[in-house]
Amino acid sequence: MAPDPDMPATELHPLDAALALQPLGGDRFAGRTLPEWGNMVGPFGGITAAHLLQAALLHPGRRGEPLALTVNFAGAVGEGGFEIEARIMRTTRTTQHWSFVQRQGEVVCSTGSAVFALRRPTWSAPELAMPAVPPAAQVPPARGEPPMQWPRRYEFRFVEGGWPDFRHAREEPESRTLLWVRDAPPRPLDAPALAAIADVFYPRVFRRRGRFTPAGTISLTTYFHADAAALAAQGDRPLLAAAGGRRFTLGFFDQSAELWSDDGHLLASSHQVVYFKE
Amino acid sequence: MAPDPDMPATELHPLDAALALQPLGGDRFAGRTLPEWGNMVGPFGGITAAHLLQAALLHPGRRGEPLALTVNFAGAVGEGGFEIEARIMRTTRTTQHWSFVQRQGEVVCSTGSAVFALRRPTWSAPELAMPAVPPAAQVPPARGEPPMQWPRRYEFRFVEGGWPDFRHAREEPESRTLLWVRDAPPRPLDAPALAAIADVFYPRVFRRRGRFTPAGTISLTTYFHADAAALAAQGDRPLLAAAGGRRFTLGFFDQSAELWSDDGHLLASSHQVVYFKE
Repeated sequence: MAPDPDMPATELHPLDAALALQPLGGDRFAGRTLPEWGNMVGPFGGITAAHLLQAALLHPGRRGEPLALTVNFAGAVGEGGFEIEARIMRTTRTTQHWSFVQRQGEVVCSTGSAVFALRRPTWSAPELAMPAVPPAAQVPPARGEPPMQWPRRYEFRFVEGGWPDFRHAREEPESRTLLWVRDAPPRPLDAPALAAIADVFYPRVFRRRGRFTPAGTISLTTYFHADAAALAAQGDRPLLAAAGGRRFTLGFFDQSAELWSDDGHLLASSHQVVYFKE
Repeated sequence: MAPDPDMPATELHPLDAALALQPLGGDRFAGRTLPEWGNMVGPFGGITAAHLLQAALLHPGRRGEPLALTVNFAGAVGEGGFEIEARIMRTTRTTQHWSFVQRQGEVVCSTGSAVFALRRPTWSAPELAMPAVPPAAQVPPARGEPPMQWPRRYEFRFVEGGWPDFRHAREEPESRTLLWVRDAPPRPLDAPALAAIADVFYPRVFRRRGRFTPAGTISLTTYFHADAAALAAQGDRPLLAAAGGRRFTLGFFDQSAELWSDDGHLLASSHQVVYFKE
């Protein structure tokens, strides 16, 4: 394979660099913010979600695979080191319940929980259908991404609702975004990568208002519909991602998202409630 | 006011009876299961969600009002007493982050988290529109509810997707349910009542398959779009409630729900991932 000019062979992929937590023994894991994952203030929320999930995945007591992940963002993670406490709260025959706290010194940056599960063959059926869109190869990668670092860690191919251009934008009656997305440089999909991708949608209030306002995710929940084998089968090809809001009021709104494999299976659904300033 | 024949003046409303937690000092609260709220195994998940939220509401350190609530159901709550630990993890200028553990003895029954928030006037707008339905008064209350106790704590007026009749049911291509619902006997709406109502939708797999299979909520997340004044304005009139599934696979599925005031405002959206046996 020809060397990828974007990724020297001697360096970790930026996602793997972020996920390289250091086990400190017991339930404690040390990590460090990386400038590559920076958002307006502190790191991209998706990378924090991936960090918490990764702590459980690295824990020697872990059983099963991710089914549900909730992250509550209590305050921006400051530049530098942090510690994650990942506690097993209960293990049953089919599920394992986790509780997370991310701290810098004594300050709680985020809390969260996860449920891991053992999947087994059952009756299966889709309900929500994948939106009809042109294949990723027919949608050009986006230009004009915002000045933060984290959007450079993804390839965005917007079908609808691309990066807002606040110079020409106006109020819109709806906030739907539809895009093909994958890690940049491409990287095989796994659960931490999917947990991060679930947060790639810029705040829906930008799209509705056609203007910038300070905004940040308060709480993020992702449900995983695919096991490791199904995620591996997706490889590094783009996922179809859809997001939209429900109600904006009194400084908060919620938005929901779906992430689809390129052959039409729902891999995850994700929901968040978001703060906005005015 | 004339006495309500359904609710003797000397008895607490069944929801208030369930919410009468006993503060044990610090972050600890004692509660007790009530047969009125029984499900197939253990209590109705919605009442557990209301219990956790109520512990935060009773805590003297509480600031703000509910914005997000996540409950992870680790195992059925056994008949009898339980204890809830409700810890404030961080309080910021506009949010307060909570962590919950519900135990019986040493056994963890549920875990969870909440974010409380201070709301303030901002740009506001709906995005999802309330489904067009006949008013509650034109939809007769449902008959034929299942044999568990908790459905008797609600008045269900199904517009679409009522209680499954497994004798005559068949596989369905979708699992949507639409109904008017309120506490029975009627009770003014507040946040714990809304947290419980968010879980009144029977498992969507029943509707899709047209047959019974053991099933139970694993994780439930509800976002609140209304402050105490907006909930009080709804009074004891029926809410419009809609729910549907996304994907059913390998023993788990997810479903999402919206709860609307009768004048068309989205009061809450709620999401859950559910286990099913076969």
